[in-house]
Amino acid sequence: MRTTAAHFLQALNSQLRHSSTTSKMKLLYPNSLVLDTASLQGFAPTLHEYDVHAPIPDALLDAEILVTWTNSAANLRDAKARMPNLRWIQSLAAGPNDVLGAGFDPRAVAVTTGSGLHDRTVAEHALGLLLNAARRFYEMRDYQLQGKWPGHLGGPQPDRAPGSFRTLRDARVTVWGFGNIAKTLTPHLVALGATVRGVARRPGVRNGIEVFGEDSLPELLPQTDALVMILPGDASTRHALAAERLALLPSHAWVVNVGRGSSIDEDALLKALEAGTIGGAALDVFDTEPLPEASPLWKAPNLIVSPHAAGGRPQGAEALIVDNLRRFLAGQQLRNAL
Amino acid sequence: MRTTAAHFLQALNSQLRHSSTTSKMKLLYPNSLVLDTASLQGFAPTLHEYDVHAPIPDALLDAEILVTWTNSAANLRDAKARMPNLRWIQSLAAGPNDVLGAGFDPRAVAVTTGSGLHDRTVAEHALGLLLNAARRFYEMRDYQLQGKWPGHLGGPQPDRAPGSFRTLRDARVTVWGFGNIAKTLTPHLVALGATVRGVARRPGVRNGIEVFGEDSLPELLPQTDALVMILPGDASTRHALAAERLALLPSHAWVVNVGRGSSIDEDALLKALEAGTIGGAALDVFDTEPLPEASPLWKAPNLIVSPHAAGGRPQGAEALIVDNLRRFLAGQQLRNAL
Repeated sequence: MRTTAAHFLQALNSQLRHSSTTSKMKLLYPNSLVLDTASLQGFAPTLHEYDVHAPIPDALLDAEILVTWTNSAANLRDAKARMPNLRWIQSLAAGPNDVLGAGFDPRAVAVTTGSGLHDRTVAEHALGLLLNAARRFYEMRDYQLQGKWPGHLGGPQPDRAPGSFRTLRDARVTVWGFGNIAKTLTPHLVALGATVRGVARRPGVRNGIEVFGEDSLPELLPQTDALVMILPGDASTRHALAAERLALLPSHAWVVNVGRGSSIDEDALLKALEAGTIGGAALDVFDTEPLPEASPLWKAPNLIVSPHAAGGRPQGAEALIVDNLRRFLAGQQLRNAL
Repeated sequence: MRTTAAHFLQALNSQLRHSSTTSKMKLLYPNSLVLDTASLQGFAPTLHEYDVHAPIPDALLDAEILVTWTNSAANLRDAKARMPNLRWIQSLAAGPNDVLGAGFDPRAVAVTTGSGLHDRTVAEHALGLLLNAARRFYEMRDYQLQGKWPGHLGGPQPDRAPGSFRTLRDARVTVWGFGNIAKTLTPHLVALGATVRGVARRPGVRNGIEVFGEDSLPELLPQTDALVMILPGDASTRHALAAERLALLPSHAWVVNVGRGSSIDEDALLKALEAGTIGGAALDVFDTEPLPEASPLWKAPNLIVSPHAAGGRPQGAEALIVDNLRRFLAGQQLRNAL
């Protein structure tokens, strides 16, 4: 038989599980993107918008949950210094370097990333860069700006001539870095007729694509018409593509990078472009961004410069926040945890 | 009981069916593209390559079958004048204006087109132009040529903001002209997340896409983020898109034309681009090609000029030639007959 005291203790325990002090838990969401906040409702924590470019307001300093997106470094340092109750930070970026850079320790505060939220945007941009390269839109633009008709790029043309990358149909595309973005991109390439293979740390067959280990690069690169790089930017991937591997690519092959700039040795790439030992490169990411005015890459032949534009638009953030919020409140493992 | 005479007559009749005089039938194929001639063998006619930029050689003047691709006007006029036995001309172009322009009468000589041979190339190019427009590659190139980083096109961006065409995901694409090229293009658009509808003379549902009649344009155009035009170039389609219909498009909408230049009133388009009443235009075809140096279109804002580059590479010509050759020899209806 349950006593009144037992009921009281059970109610108190329940309340404590849902509050840090006597106030309810708070979740802070950024003002830097449009969020459908109605989709976040139904949980105990209250929701509060905050300015990612300003110090955290005093009334919100006790928040336990912080969702971040393009927060200024000052804002994140301020959060680190003045938010003692923070237990979970949900970044909407694929890589939360900014959060870690502000000093947050994933062992002390749960940090989850926006991995998955950028798959479709980056995949679409990569597809566009491949077609820009193959169909020579960049070269057409050069002529257009001079008011000249680039007749050599139009009219009757060779069809899938060996030693050329002018169409995705029957092109041999190697995708290096085979995570969710690659899995989103490759079906479009296959549908357009490309022959696609992947390279990753763990070989296997993923989403119907044969993925090889990096030790297979010496065999794959000479059989590649377009190399798409989607590697994270860390010490282990620095200059993954440098002089030696660039030399393995056929002279008509294009390199498309939508991962991180550090994956490519830009000096070696410049040499290869100037020597014509690769067909071209379409880069959305660079070692230093913005690409410095003095960089010789600006004048490299057959180079397409895209200003880190592939992503920048998290999609499906609400669903991820909600899923992780439920898990957090239930004391379960969070998704995309560092 | 069959007599020797009956056998003789039967053999003679058989020989006549397979020859115009006492020599075998001849099929002439053009030197202007790579053809796998082994794929054409197995039929009675002999196969002969000829130069599309020269008069037909005397030894080949008695040919019954002529396959054409980018023949010079002089060559076609010469063929018309000096090939009395021609019974069938197989053009590899989607529209055989050149053959008709040389004076061949489809009622006297069977003329078949290369419709279907350009579906995948034109569809891929149209997809590339859509992505060039949406992802602003043309604008990025303008900055790159000045050695400037177009930061406003990169980093954090609005996601599918109303009144913008920055991605195919959830874009409302209207495809005007719904033949085989449209049916090849639209699955890629759908796979990339676009909402696609078609416009054609005959409404209906084709390949899973709802196709409306042209009387629906006043309702469709205001709900269009990208209008893809794939109309043939004849009197009935001249200036199909002119001032009145341009005015129905939202100010952010793009027009992509891979059909024929005459479909668009270029003066009205220029006005709309300069006034900003449409978002932009990507044109692979023009009223006059090459686009004349003096054309004000060269300096139009948000215009992508592509030099009739979408096709120009017939694919699958051998299979079409073989199919039609079998039909021709069997006295059956030819495919793609005018």
